[in-house]
Amino acid sequence: MTQQGRFITLEGGEGVGKSTNLSFVRDYLHSRGIRVTTTREPGGTPVAERIRALLLANDEQEPLDDLAELLLIFAGRAQHLARVIRPALARGEWVVSDRFTDATFAYQGSARGIAPERIAMLEQFVQQGLAPDLTLWLDMPVSYAADRLAARGGERDRFERERGDFFERVRQGYRARAEQAPERMVAVDASQSLEQVQRDIAQRLDQQLASWN
Amino acid sequence: MTQQGRFITLEGGEGVGKSTNLSFVRDYLHSRGIRVTTTREPGGTPVAERIRALLLANDEQEPLDDLAELLLIFAGRAQHLARVIRPALARGEWVVSDRFTDATFAYQGSARGIAPERIAMLEQFVQQGLAPDLTLWLDMPVSYAADRLAARGGERDRFERERGDFFERVRQGYRARAEQAPERMVAVDASQSLEQVQRDIAQRLDQQLASWN
Repeated sequence: MTQQGRFITLEGGEGVGKSTNLSFVRDYLHSRGIRVTTTREPGGTPVAERIRALLLANDEQEPLDDLAELLLIFAGRAQHLARVIRPALARGEWVVSDRFTDATFAYQGSARGIAPERIAMLEQFVQQGLAPDLTLWLDMPVSYAADRLAARGGERDRFERERGDFFERVRQGYRARAEQAPERMVAVDASQSLEQVQRDIAQRLDQQLASWN
Repeated sequence: MTQQGRFITLEGGEGVGKSTNLSFVRDYLHSRGIRVTTTREPGGTPVAERIRALLLANDEQEPLDDLAELLLIFAGRAQHLARVIRPALARGEWVVSDRFTDATFAYQGSARGIAPERIAMLEQFVQQGLAPDLTLWLDMPVSYAADRLAARGGERDRFERERGDFFERVRQGYRARAEQAPERMVAVDASQSLEQVQRDIAQRLDQQLASWN
């Protein structure tokens, strides 16, 4: 039997543990005999990674216009879909992506203030109906995530440097998305121990695997 | 009296003489006492020039998806509008740009095959009604332009490397735009001598200056 491709996304703000849990999801699916492609946004192809670099660069001289930022994100997404996501799904692989369009609604929508209808228009323009089958939203209080990020050290990118209630608005944006699409998007309490977070993720994956069989 | 800003664009395929004539338009307007900002697309700001570099790069490994190309162009345009065009017009300057959205309809629309309604949607999304007051379309047979381009030498960018009837479709795309907006967009026969081309441009500028006074 040919495996049917499924599209799973991990979402959440900075410092919630997406990378660690992406590896966990990949390994868990592998252990069930599923072929998996892991990827990330912004980015996921060499060209889209060059767009990512433009998005994350700290240019004090020339702030990036909010609409330019939004269009760059969807340009990278179009490339990512054409070169990685759609071909992998067509081969019957599962695609697990560190962030996708829910992040655009949370960051560029809720946090930057672009109307969700405008983002939805680009979503339809670029994705033409393609959406994740399952989204795991790693949620934790903003102050926890900030502490983790501070402990990590290193230089901060253009998003990590945001201040004030930016990250609170990102979290509210994710919450609104999860409320709108409860059949696809589930919150995982990422403030728990890593073991408990991964037990929750595994349980949810088992549930999906059963329902998709 | 405060000068009212006007937005003039020069359009046309590769090798039709846009750069030379852009300088001519700038100098001609200066000689009439008009403050002018000259710029170009794709590009026009440091960030938008980095987007231009992505668009023109020849990446044999990873062809750029048509939709990604279109969105990159509008991302650069949003940045260009926010940082250069709108501020200059607000200061009462005239803006003269080497290419703008007519090029998108000609290249990404007519030549690449993206439906004009889809481009018009992004045009409205990004420009929100802002359009050139005058567009000079430098038109010449594709074979003439190809000879000029060959004589120029140097490495060809991703668009200049296009083959077959790509440039014929670009020209048809420009012609369709000019037919749709004759009050704004005029064809200049760029296969004439440079002196004659510039006499035609000067005549058209005089006509506009008179009508705008």
